[in-house]
Amino acid sequence: MELVVKGMTCGHCEAAVQRAVKQVAPQAEVLIERAQGRVSVNGAKDAKGVENAIRQEGYEAYAIE
Amino acid sequence: MELVVKGMTCGHCEAAVQRAVKQVAPQAEVLIERAQGRVSVNGAKDAKGVENAIRQEGYEAYAIE
Repeated sequence: MELVVKGMTCGHCEAAVQRAVKQVAPQAEVLIERAQGRVSVNGAKDAKGVENAIRQEGYEAYAIE
Repeated sequence: MELVVKGMTCGHCEAAVQRAVKQVAPQAEVLIERAQGRVSVNGAKDAKGVENAIRQEGYEAYAIE
């Protein structure tokens, strides 16, 4: 799945998003493009859970595909 | 002591700076004004150590008083 994630400003933010996704999808591969505000998650079963986990870290997150 | 600290963009950055200062000055009181790029540290014995600890987290840091 691909997400637009707004509000990531630094490496700590990337780590926080990475951690959030891994909590709900431990096996997933997570690729973060901070400058583009994009996050790719491969192998997550619960797409809504991924979106919510990122939101709970304080970022706007929208699954786009 | 007062420091100018450049590069803090989010709450995670504040936490990282807070943690860095506490590592070298566990008893110190740390006040972070992210928007202003200012950090106040009261009760640190090793001012140079505080400056260096913040730099090692990846921020520019200059003790100004």
